[in-house]
Parts: sequence; structure tokens; C-alpha cells
Amino acid sequence: MTRIVCRQLAPVLGDLVANHREIVRTITEETAAGADVLVLPELATSGYVFRASEEVAACAITPSDPLVEEWVAAISGGAVVVCGFAERGENGLVHNSAVVLDASGVRTTYRKVHLWDREKLFFTPGDRLPEVVDTSFGRIAPMICYDLEFPEYTRSVALAGADLIAAPTNWPLVDRPDGERPPEVLIAQAAARVNRVTIACCDRTGTERGQAWTEGTTIIDHNGWPAAEAGPDHRAACTADLTTARDKQISPHNNLFQDRHPTLYITT
Amino acid sequence: MTRIVCRQLAPVLGDLVANHREIVRTITEETAAGADVLVLPELATSGYVFRASEEVAACAITPSDPLVEEWVAAISGGAVVVCGFAERGENGLVHNSAVVLDASGVRTTYRKVHLWDREKLFFTPGDRLPEVVDTSFGRIAPMICYDLEFPEYTRSVALAGADLIAAPTNWPLVDRPDGERPPEVLIAQAAARVNRVTIACCDRTGTERGQAWTEGTTIIDHNGWPAAEAGPDHRAACTADLTTARDKQISPHNNLFQDRHPTLYITT
Repeated sequence: MTRIVCRQLAPVLGDLVANHREIVRTITEETAAGADVLVLPELATSGYVFRASEEVAACAITPSDPLVEEWVAAISGGAVVVCGFAERGENGLVHNSAVVLDASGVRTTYRKVHLWDREKLFFTPGDRLPEVVDTSFGRIAPMICYDLEFPEYTRSVALAGADLIAAPTNWPLVDRPDGERPPEVLIAQAAARVNRVTIACCDRTGTERGQAWTEGTTIIDHNGWPAAEAGPDHRAACTADLTTARDKQISPHNNLFQDRHPTLYITT
Repeated sequence: MTRIVCRQLAPVLGDLVANHREIVRTITEETAAGADVLVLPELATSGYVFRASEEVAACAITPSDPLVEEWVAAISGGAVVVCGFAERGENGLVHNSAVVLDASGVRTTYRKVHLWDREKLFFTPGDRLPEVVDTSFGRIAPMICYDLEFPEYTRSVALAGADLIAAPTNWPLVDRPDGERPPEVLIAQAAARVNRVTIACCDRTGTERGQAWTEGTTIIDHNGWPAAEAGPDHRAACTADLTTARDKQISPHNNLFQDRHPTLYITT
């Protein structure tokens, strides 16, 4: 069984050093305490509510930055860490990215493809699917926030073999009826169930230029049901057998992937 | 505004005449009472829990059957009716189908593509997407039960222009945690929200060879929230502006369809 932990941090806008310290502290604490897979929020290094490109560019780093080496060094044992950050890319471009780390270093860097609202003013979208990283716990794919709301994208990553989608998010609070879960969680639940994968969504907290956050951190099991939700402690944790995702047979005659009729679908 | 009504009937296994009478009675009653769009269950003519192909073949009809003409004749005013039935196709094949009707006749017949469990023993799957039918209330596409659980399929129908997906279902009862909606409803809610379409799911009731049903009839608005759920009266009704579905802009910088990155998706 794999111990999955999400920590709903409160990044400080533009304060790379303070955010870095909090990331190191959290990785140290949680992996020492037994987390096998630790997921941190989107843009955990930079905050979110930018007013100008210069703000995010000033705290963007590459995945080979010494700060990221410190994250790697903070990992205890065989744990895997997924963390969102503002990435300095080629030619001065800035990406909304996530790294997948273990004690050996950076396993993959993913650049968010589907950008939300004003992110389009500050970030260049990625141009490839998340890589599925084979770990001792199972196959883990990163995905970031609004990416989850494209069911053809979650499907793609499931078809590529992911057992767990680890999704750093920054969910700005939106309206919902009383008693309902956040709509982003609902969408992730459906994605988990129709693909039979686990999805760990790690949201953020903290105030930033008046923006309220959903604080909707939820770990969803492969049947689509919440296994853990963050409360006032801003932490969600559960254990799961990630490899359960590999059996897509859901009735004597039904296999979630084999039942698809791809030639009929509109894909353009 | 369009008045949508779902009636969660209790088809009797193999009793075409009795089921036909119930369909006529329901169409007459609801369209006279003001339903603009009436959705009835999957296989409303035949029941569901077959043991042999002969059972379903014996009550399969074509869309040009005189019984269907009686359904058309029962429609008051401009109402649209969507009803599931066992269809006798070419070469003796039997399909799990739905007709979309108005007072002018059969607007389209759709054959279920994604067959659930033992349906595969009795039915031949359809080989085309549902047709989107232009009506005075909006553009309506039929879809049947397990079809809804393929997000690339609901997406396809939304891309084809549907404002409302009208889905006859027979949902065999499955486990779910206390307090949760049926998983099929959850999946439909996500499909409604990510595509910004209304989805009317009409389930069935009644006992049949010991099979329990979810009785999960739900009309879901274009934001993914249940607008009406059937209670002990086995009826759900609400009003909606179906054409709201045509605006896919959900933030100043986001359009649900234009934000897709189709070249990145795995579609095979």
C-alpha cells in the first residue's frame, strides 16, 4: 500500500526564498513521517495572482536550479514528490510546470498545457502530454489544475498507463450550490472513475491580492470516491494500492478501455 | 424556457403490448400537461434482464412500426419525446435504440454504441454517433446509459452541437458510499459541466428477475448541478434555457472548446 499525502501550502506571491523554505520543510517533514507520494500545490514557488509578466519571471527557475536540488536532498527514503513551480524555459519563456522528484533527482518536468484565464498572459503552454513515471509505488503522471477539466486529456494519460494522476492545483473559489463539492473535484471524481485511476489534487490556501481559494485538496480513489479531503489542517492523507488501476475490467463483459469506439469519436 | 420531464417507468419484461400502452399513456399525459421535452427509459418497450436472444427478438420493433406511430400521435403540440426501445434492424439484428419523436414523426433513431455487460449477448452495437436534432427548444441528441460513461463520446456530441443530451438509461444498482449520488450521475454531472450542456438522464424502476435499479433519474444543468431528481413519484421536471449551452466561454480568457489541444490527445 502507498501512503499518499497532499499539503495545501500558502505560497507567498513573488517570495521565492520563503516559498522554497516552506517546500523544503514540508518535504523533509512528510517524507520522514512516512509519505510515499507527496503532492504540493501548483506554483508553490511563486504564488499565483500576478499583475505583470516581470513578477513571475523574477521568480522562475529551471528544474536544474540548486533550489530543486535542495528539494531532492530533503526527500527521505524512496518517496516521490510532485511540486508545482514557475519554470524558466528556453528563450526566456515562462511555464506553469510541475516536477516529479525522488531521491535520485528530477524524474520529469511537465509544462501545463491548458492555461486558466490570466495565466495566458504570463505563461507559455506546454506542448506535450505528461510523462508517466514508473516508480516503486506505481506509475505516476503529473497534471496541473485546469488540465483535469479536459476529459480527453485525463483519458490520454490513463491510456498512457498512469496509475496515479498527481495534480498540483490553485483553484480560485467559484460559486457552487450549498452542500456540493467543488466542481473541480466533481470533474476529477468522474475522471478517476471512468479511467479507474487514483487522482490526488493538491490545492493551495492563503490570501493573495484578495483572491479566495477553494481549498479543495482531495485524494480520489480509483472508483471516483474521495478517500481523503483536507480540513482546517490543510492536509489530506490516505493509503491506496495504486496498481489496482491496471485492471480496467468492471463487469464480466466490460473493460473501460476496450469498450471505447475510437473511430466514432470527434477528436479535432 | 423549455420544460424538461423524465418519467421513470417500470417496463415489464417481454410484454410489448403493456409497455406500449404505458408509453402512450405517459406521452399523452405529460405532453398535454406541458412537457416540451419528455424523456423515457432505455428499453421501455421490452424490459432489460433477458436470458436469451429470443426473448428480446420477440418484442423488437422497427422505428416505422405502427406502435411508434401511436407514440407520435399521442404527442400534444410541439413537444419532443425521446424513448428507448428494442429495435429490429437489418438482417435480424437487434439494437438497443432510442427514437427522437415529435408530432411530425420520427426525427432520428440512435443505436447504443457502448453496450453494458450482458447486453453484448443480445444486442448489436450501433456504428455511428447520435444525430443532433434541431428542434424549436434547442439541439437535442439522444445517448443511452453506458454511452454517457465515455467522456470522449459526450464530448463528441457536444462538439457536434448538442444543447441537450437526452439519455434513456437502465441503471442496475451498484455500490456507493453513504450520502453519495449514483456514480452514473456523477459522471453525467462532469460531462455536463466540462461541455456546458444540459443532460437529462431517465432511469427505470420496477422489479425484474430480482434486479434492483438505481432509480437515479436526474436532470443536470449546463453547470453540472442537478436541477431535478426523481423521488418516490418517479418523475423529474424542471425548466431550462437549452441554448445557454451555445456559449462555451467560461472566463474572460477561456472557452471550453477552443482551450482543447487535440493534437496532444491520445485518440486511438
